[in-house]
Amino acid sequence: MKVDGVSWRPIQLAADGWRVTIIDQTRLPHRFETVDLETLDEAAHAIRAMLVRGAPLIGATAAYGVALAMRQDPSDTHLAHAIETLRQTRPTAVNLFWALERVRAALHNRAPADRAAAAYAAAAEIAEEDVGICEAIGDNGLEIIRAIAAKKPGETVNILTHCNAGWLATVDWGTALAPIYKAHDAGIDVHVWVDETRPRNQGASLTAWELGAHGVPMTVVVDNAGGHLMQHGQVDMVITGTDRTTRTGDVCNKIGTYLKALAAKDNGVPFYVGLPGPTIDWAVRDGVADIPIEERSGDEVGRIAGRTDDGEVVTVTLTPEGARSGNPAFDVTPARLVTGLITERGVCEASEAGLLGLYPEKADG
Amino acid sequence: MKVDGVSWRPIQLAADGWRVTIIDQTRLPHRFETVDLETLDEAAHAIRAMLVRGAPLIGATAAYGVALAMRQDPSDTHLAHAIETLRQTRPTAVNLFWALERVRAALHNRAPADRAAAAYAAAAEIAEEDVGICEAIGDNGLEIIRAIAAKKPGETVNILTHCNAGWLATVDWGTALAPIYKAHDAGIDVHVWVDETRPRNQGASLTAWELGAHGVPMTVVVDNAGGHLMQHGQVDMVITGTDRTTRTGDVCNKIGTYLKALAAKDNGVPFYVGLPGPTIDWAVRDGVADIPIEERSGDEVGRIAGRTDDGEVVTVTLTPEGARSGNPAFDVTPARLVTGLITERGVCEASEAGLLGLYPEKADG
Repeated sequence: MKVDGVSWRPIQLAADGWRVTIIDQTRLPHRFETVDLETLDEAAHAIRAMLVRGAPLIGATAAYGVALAMRQDPSDTHLAHAIETLRQTRPTAVNLFWALERVRAALHNRAPADRAAAAYAAAAEIAEEDVGICEAIGDNGLEIIRAIAAKKPGETVNILTHCNAGWLATVDWGTALAPIYKAHDAGIDVHVWVDETRPRNQGASLTAWELGAHGVPMTVVVDNAGGHLMQHGQVDMVITGTDRTTRTGDVCNKIGTYLKALAAKDNGVPFYVGLPGPTIDWAVRDGVADIPIEERSGDEVGRIAGRTDDGEVVTVTLTPEGARSGNPAFDVTPARLVTGLITERGVCEASEAGLLGLYPEKADG
Repeated sequence: MKVDGVSWRPIQLAADGWRVTIIDQTRLPHRFETVDLETLDEAAHAIRAMLVRGAPLIGATAAYGVALAMRQDPSDTHLAHAIETLRQTRPTAVNLFWALERVRAALHNRAPADRAAAAYAAAAEIAEEDVGICEAIGDNGLEIIRAIAAKKPGETVNILTHCNAGWLATVDWGTALAPIYKAHDAGIDVHVWVDETRPRNQGASLTAWELGAHGVPMTVVVDNAGGHLMQHGQVDMVITGTDRTTRTGDVCNKIGTYLKALAAKDNGVPFYVGLPGPTIDWAVRDGVADIPIEERSGDEVGRIAGRTDDGEVVTVTLTPEGARSGNPAFDVTPARLVTGLITERGVCEASEAGLLGLYPEKADG
């Protein structure tokens, strides 16, 4: 997607063809800064310190991290060290482990001299596959937006989203935001209500930044506002991403998604989820009962970073001294509240039958 | 209620019997500071600059403002000037106008020499009436909490609240929080989930502060968390306040209240609203259609104040430069989502029949 008219990805090769340029997402939305990764350790740090985040982007960065390591020293020992180092960066990122195994397989039986080139090729393939998946989600979701636009000619299509499932979380396009970029680029008059997404404010910082940089009209609102907007006909559609979707179509996503789904149902607003097939957990049937929800530090609720009027970025405390904060990071939206799942293979009902229609190979799971 | 074991009200006479001591609420939760008002202009400033806020507290402060003015100069001219000055402090506060008219009536036909004493008496009466209303709401709501506690002996009763409808917004007790203080003081093991209440964070600042100061166990959560907590049986009851309740029981309150009511309904959690009779708008039937919702400055969304690790209070910007923010300040929860209304006269169903049962004098309205 674009930043001030120039095409960018959150990870791409530098002009020299070997360094890996990433956008430092810890600086957004206050600064747009890039970092050139040159070593394994720099790649590991970028993942660990969340300069890159979002499962697909973490996977691609790890793959390029192996490539950088092989450029430094293609020995068996260093390969094993590189994979182990990168595995340790984030504890629960499935894409990370999957990407590392894939690069390891690509280097299997290769002579050390060929390993760097093979690793770069595998990393590029992983990245391009992700772009392909996200673009297909975008194309499939575009048809839904097009149908809504056709029902209100000459009027703006208002779409609400929660958290950041945009190009910054993937290699390009994003998942929830891919249909929105496709619609905007196709000339459909879209406007996005961006949920702030407390406590980490991924909406107000990342989503607002990337939509704004690409030129998509948007308005930031607090997470409390969506129900009111829907009651007053100001939302035509909700699209969110998901961290994990069950076999039955229950959707685990950033905390607060469930509240928006309830409001959408109550007001007859369609509620869609954009997801790559690999995020479906075919082993789980009851999302509310069976998906463990991470409880994160209360400091994320009680403290927040922003920039002062002097342009300095500082962290301030919002709560009374000694106050305790709770911080469940995700919630589960039951399938009954979801209008449809937008995948790279098409759009389906949020149900086992719907998902198996698109992924028949999982039928015996 | 108490602050570190000492009884406080947000407005009370100083030990000298004539100065008016208020808590400077603009400093909370970062500092607990009081201000002694000595003049009309100081009282007017306290309301205008929101050192005091909350409709009942604004009314009481205005009444005491007239008393301070009469102490300075009890002439007809100055009385008229005092009332006009105080009227201009906040544009839409019904309690403000009502309190000023009541003091004006109390001074009607009084000789200037008697006016100060009469104004102090009228102000004290207004304040005590508010305390009486709030305490009655507390007693009526206490019975509901007692019934919930009886069903889970030995366990904590978890109550979720949104925004600040506590003693800081009234003269004592509060509305939504009055039943909670009553339950805590009666020895019931209550714990409060305090919604942060973006964008102005009245929950994380004022509610968290006043519950903590009184010693009521509580945990601050982001506004996004309530649905998840209810899905997992961690909320026994929701209580909020209201700015305006319709004849039919629709409840207008701080933005986001509607989302919590939807989640309560979806999870079978009782949703109650604490309200003084005077906040019922008997002329309105359809809250969603007919209550105009104030759209406030987007700066309240994009900027926030907190204290740095050095203890300095600073305001920082959260959103990307140039990003637009929307800021509807209230929403309307339809009566169908409200389990009951807790008033000073008792608890009733959120419906015209329910309200008229408690306020039969409004039947011909």
